[in-house]
Amino acid sequence: MSLFSGLFGKKETSASVARDRLKLVLAHERASNALPYMEEMKSEIMEVIKKYTQVKDIHISSQTNQNVDVLEMEIILK
Amino acid sequence: MSLFSGLFGKKETSASVARDRLKLVLAHERASNALPYMEEMKSEIMEVIKKYTQVKDIHISSQTNQNVDVLEMEIILK
Repeated sequence: MSLFSGLFGKKETSASVARDRLKLVLAHERASNALPYMEEMKSEIMEVIKKYTQVKDIHISSQTNQNVDVLEMEIILK
Repeated sequence: MSLFSGLFGKKETSASVARDRLKLVLAHERASNALPYMEEMKSEIMEVIKKYTQVKDIHISSQTNQNVDVLEMEIILK
């Protein structure tokens, strides 16, 4: 499984710049249509994360590739 | 960004076996100690997903690699 290398940028995982970061990836492989509840579910997951963490900075991106939708959220923790 | 290829097994993304799947990856890069609220936050995120989705099958795995903890959850939707 090579997920580790893709999750956080390589140069940023060195000890010298180590910091607490969370990365959430939510991917949906579609056999047919988009899930009607997807946006609502994403918002609710984000609410959970915000409830627990002290966020210093947050980056959100989403991508679609053929039949896969991917939401990525990177949270720099205080 | 090569996350797509790692998220779902390649042979299973072909049209012939297309199906609705969700994949959630939650990674934590630790500068210091584990987050005390991590387990509780994970449980709550899972609750959100269970609330919205109709789960046919679910696979959960977690891995630790140096200073990165990764939780992966793959949900086969009905």
